[in-house]
Amino acid sequence: MNYPQYFQDLIEAFNRIPGVGLKSATRMAFSLLETKPEYRHQFISAISAIDQVNVYCHRCHNLTDQPLCMICEDKSRNHRQICVVADIKDLFSIERTGEYHGSYHVLHGLVNVKKGVYPDDLFISDLLERIKACDEVIIATPTTIEGETTALYLSKLLENEQVKVSRLAYGLPIGMSIEYADELTIIRAFEGRHEVKK
Amino acid sequence: MNYPQYFQDLIEAFNRIPGVGLKSATRMAFSLLETKPEYRHQFISAISAIDQVNVYCHRCHNLTDQPLCMICEDKSRNHRQICVVADIKDLFSIERTGEYHGSYHVLHGLVNVKKGVYPDDLFISDLLERIKACDEVIIATPTTIEGETTALYLSKLLENEQVKVSRLAYGLPIGMSIEYADELTIIRAFEGRHEVKK
Repeated sequence: MNYPQYFQDLIEAFNRIPGVGLKSATRMAFSLLETKPEYRHQFISAISAIDQVNVYCHRCHNLTDQPLCMICEDKSRNHRQICVVADIKDLFSIERTGEYHGSYHVLHGLVNVKKGVYPDDLFISDLLERIKACDEVIIATPTTIEGETTALYLSKLLENEQVKVSRLAYGLPIGMSIEYADELTIIRAFEGRHEVKK
Repeated sequence: MNYPQYFQDLIEAFNRIPGVGLKSATRMAFSLLETKPEYRHQFISAISAIDQVNVYCHRCHNLTDQPLCMICEDKSRNHRQICVVADIKDLFSIERTGEYHGSYHVLHGLVNVKKGVYPDDLFISDLLERIKACDEVIIATPTTIEGETTALYLSKLLENEQVKVSRLAYGLPIGMSIEYADELTIIRAFEGRHEVKK
């Protein structure tokens, strides 16, 4: 016996979310079925809001429901410093540290030739516009192959521009024992070692 | 920095699903944000279908989009046998075995005095109607305290009715070593032991 079509559709809708298996999707569909109608209406309005509001900041492509995001609107931040991140999740991870006070530029992806993602598919052209009024670009793409490729592309691109370009430090993450670190991380940690006593 | 309100609402909508933590909810909200609008529309229609179709079978309270569910409509099944289950998930678990060919009756809950769920809150009165045209009621509530309470209540209720009443067997689940079985399961398995050789 199969589930009725409308319920099968709901399971599939959940199942299409990356990381949600068929069992979890079924459980979630049942929970929506068994809940109050108000909650389903709230769910529906939350999803439809995405297509109703201006989702991304016109300047940095961060999440917003205004033309510019809270960070771009914040006069207290240093807008002459731009931290380039792959996606919004990375931006929020950096924000959670509370230590960075510059602005951002969200690429919404990374160069991945295998998957057919080229620099033109990312928000790079308007980054070039933005750096004209900026002192430093901090490349904060992940240290994966795609992240490194994108970082390399960006640094080549900005080579002749009148702007400082930096990349986040490589090294051992806090709380990691050397034993469990991979070879490349150890090599990079050696390369990036800093003097503690002269 | 906080997420924009519409996005916060979406995270909360996911977070309200039992078993979905804040991190998973955030990840799911991002995945809906980054996906194609068509997919969001499919999601919305799947959820709204719940409030548009007749969700439960008028006879057995199984999931359906018709007045009667596929099982109640199925002439090849034995409708003189009713298997009483707590919820639809249990019904589908039994259906997956492919071994039961009778009909069902979904209580949509279990008696739980602590949580204020009394027999009147469950679909029991119409079960009494149905048994008039039935030979056997198989009580398939779970072997939890609430399941046992409900089973006890049902068996008392059906005591004087002209119908056979049975309860699913207790015992060791398949693939379980005695070492890991709890005492009650072992006691019940002893009580329910069957002769293999005279």
